[in-house]
Amino acid sequence: MNKPLSPTTSRYMPTDSPQSASGAPVAVKSLSNNHTRRQFLKSTLQTTGVAALGLSAKTYGYTAKEVQDFFVDGQMQRNVSQWELDTPALCVDLDILEANINTMQSTTRRNGIASRPHAKTHKCPIIARLQLDTGSVGICTAKVGEAKVMFEHGIEEIMMTTTNVTPTKIKRAMELSRINTSFIHATDSMSNARLLSEAAQAFNITAPVVVDIDPGGHRTGITPGESALMLAQLIDSLPGLSLRGLLCYDGGSQHVQGFAARRDQTLGRLAAATATYDLFQASGLSTEIFSGGGTGTYNIDHNIRGLTDVQVGSYLFMDTQYLAIGGENDNSVYSDFGASLTILTTVLNDQYEGRCTTDAGAKACTINQPWPQVKGEQGMSYTSGSDEFGTLRYEANASRTYRTGEKLELIVSHCDPVVNLYNHLYAIRGETVEAIWPIAARGMST
Amino acid sequence: MNKPLSPTTSRYMPTDSPQSASGAPVAVKSLSNNHTRRQFLKSTLQTTGVAALGLSAKTYGYTAKEVQDFFVDGQMQRNVSQWELDTPALCVDLDILEANINTMQSTTRRNGIASRPHAKTHKCPIIARLQLDTGSVGICTAKVGEAKVMFEHGIEEIMMTTTNVTPTKIKRAMELSRINTSFIHATDSMSNARLLSEAAQAFNITAPVVVDIDPGGHRTGITPGESALMLAQLIDSLPGLSLRGLLCYDGGSQHVQGFAARRDQTLGRLAAATATYDLFQASGLSTEIFSGGGTGTYNIDHNIRGLTDVQVGSYLFMDTQYLAIGGENDNSVYSDFGASLTILTTVLNDQYEGRCTTDAGAKACTINQPWPQVKGEQGMSYTSGSDEFGTLRYEANASRTYRTGEKLELIVSHCDPVVNLYNHLYAIRGETVEAIWPIAARGMST
Repeated sequence: MNKPLSPTTSRYMPTDSPQSASGAPVAVKSLSNNHTRRQFLKSTLQTTGVAALGLSAKTYGYTAKEVQDFFVDGQMQRNVSQWELDTPALCVDLDILEANINTMQSTTRRNGIASRPHAKTHKCPIIARLQLDTGSVGICTAKVGEAKVMFEHGIEEIMMTTTNVTPTKIKRAMELSRINTSFIHATDSMSNARLLSEAAQAFNITAPVVVDIDPGGHRTGITPGESALMLAQLIDSLPGLSLRGLLCYDGGSQHVQGFAARRDQTLGRLAAATATYDLFQASGLSTEIFSGGGTGTYNIDHNIRGLTDVQVGSYLFMDTQYLAIGGENDNSVYSDFGASLTILTTVLNDQYEGRCTTDAGAKACTINQPWPQVKGEQGMSYTSGSDEFGTLRYEANASRTYRTGEKLELIVSHCDPVVNLYNHLYAIRGETVEAIWPIAARGMST
Repeated sequence: MNKPLSPTTSRYMPTDSPQSASGAPVAVKSLSNNHTRRQFLKSTLQTTGVAALGLSAKTYGYTAKEVQDFFVDGQMQRNVSQWELDTPALCVDLDILEANINTMQSTTRRNGIASRPHAKTHKCPIIARLQLDTGSVGICTAKVGEAKVMFEHGIEEIMMTTTNVTPTKIKRAMELSRINTSFIHATDSMSNARLLSEAAQAFNITAPVVVDIDPGGHRTGITPGESALMLAQLIDSLPGLSLRGLLCYDGGSQHVQGFAARRDQTLGRLAAATATYDLFQASGLSTEIFSGGGTGTYNIDHNIRGLTDVQVGSYLFMDTQYLAIGGENDNSVYSDFGASLTILTTVLNDQYEGRCTTDAGAKACTINQPWPQVKGEQGMSYTSGSDEFGTLRYEANASRTYRTGEKLELIVSHCDPVVNLYNHLYAIRGETVEAIWPIAARGMST
């Protein structure tokens, strides 16, 4: 699996005086000198793998900043083997990604609900487009900044799952609403609903809103039942707002170990949300949207009466945290979805017994646990507790050892915060880099 | 300390049809329409606080990307109160930062050594310039990407502390060496030294190199003593390389609790490096650089014979991890440096007893522990284990409680990976935003 370390002199040639393998100078084209911006953008679009995914290229108007991000030291790293990539590199296996999307779309369709995937996981407009074009009814975002980036890349069906509470954020959200009438706001208090309505009126718009219901974790959301009903009635009466339904994200149940325990917990916790849904219905209020669920409960949530869609995110990529929860058919490994997201890392030091050091530490992997797993290998453990370096330790039954300069692939610990560390994602088919996708909403935490 | 939540209608006005407080339309200037690029860059330079720090503005040639990063939704957020900032926001208190720099420079000078601060901590060229202009002999970087960004922003005296092992990285490092002859490479093996020399020859340069010595953690570096001496002799003999000395970073001792224990551990572990220094000297090899130490041992390391400088990083910002280790004069708190780096966060939900939820979770704070501390308050605990949300829990003696929309300031858990999450840093004087500094090397993990 590893690229042999066989440097040749030509690898080291300065880029402004290249030589052929025989040592003779060769002609080179500088992209920046010989391509017009139009030609360049066109070629960029052709090379992003959009066509390969059956999507329309016109949606992908990259900003100048993103075009810059495609380049690593002035060179487009496409059509090379993934083992040639500079590391640490965040990679997604396209075959596995597409299979995961297919599983989610077909399962939710079969169960009579839809998916409204959460873009907080991927922060990547190309993936959002892929989700929408394969049947998702919209995407979710946790932050206004994420929603704005998605919209700037042609994604319109966006629902924010977080309540915006400050004047600054409400203003930014309403500015987005003004140019994207599909954008849906969340709210969880009467005072906030009044602020939203006031802001929407100032913008001369009617903003779609859903009520965020607390599933019992007391993190966000209003208490289900009468409180939620009163909030919905207020929204329905306010001049700047248009009630669209409710959301109840049971984050605390997603990682419950074992399918049966997970099912029982989430169905129990969502009972109050369902009762609230009934109250909305009995009062003639909109329940067009009743959104909930996640990757851990995607094949359970359709049992919740009235639920329309699941806010799944991690199913795209998977990670060691989700693999550990067990699935309906296999209680030891959650195998419904494949681990498509990996970090490619290089061994920097092999001089010490029983271990080696790599270039992927906490800044490349986070310190979430279970720690990253070396893909395809057994009998070794990886830790990324050090900021700059990863540590690989061999057990007695290690399937192999590594030499300095060799590369290995890590299944990530927790996909969301890992993706948020990288500017781009290498989209791999087989072992070849098919595209480089900007993680355009990376760091959009406001 | 908190900005009252008092939205007015004018706050919500769309930016393209602003009104005065009286409701009458007012004239606005669109920066992009009314400023030439030259005027704009000039005004940007004037507003970055560079002058306020006594630095020459000419060093700060911002790229178009960075200029863009100064803006948050098209608006320069300068000269406002920090409590007006959209959140989560990474802030640095300039008075504390400057005092920390002064303490480091005066202590190392008094002890007859120098500082060579590690840019992996701040990733910010403006701070690197501040360090160099106040007496640091250079900066360190962990990655070629960091070094390249620093050089592009006018920082020349750079030493890489990580060995580059792949052809790709060695080529990138030598490309930097070709345009920046001050750039110093690290190596920790004979085979790597040969690769470096071969690459340097291909670029027709002589690259300065230091030997990286393992302090005993077996993470990186060559074994001190004869092995290190042989490596140094090889470097000295190779045509493409020029030996400049050695480095030995004792990362494992920096957070040892208690000054005496920390001193004894690091002096013990560095003894072998000192013996190696003696071997270099006896063999007539260069010991111009003998770099080590860090924030936890900055006032201990001068006791190591031959040591020239300390690779300090966290002293700028501090964090809950360093505050906990205790100092020479106070074993309970490491008070040599002040906590200048904070995350400003907003309360999103106050509806549930004994707690509130904020907008700064793992993607804004990391999950390092000890958890962030609420600045200036007692009797409350903060956790950032959830990706998007922080949880503040009140104890019986809580000094206050918060309402939805109010803001609070967090002392960060571990400064390096926190800085690596943000695109810019708000530089605060008193409670006013004096400058916005791009974290230009954020995410430069390759």
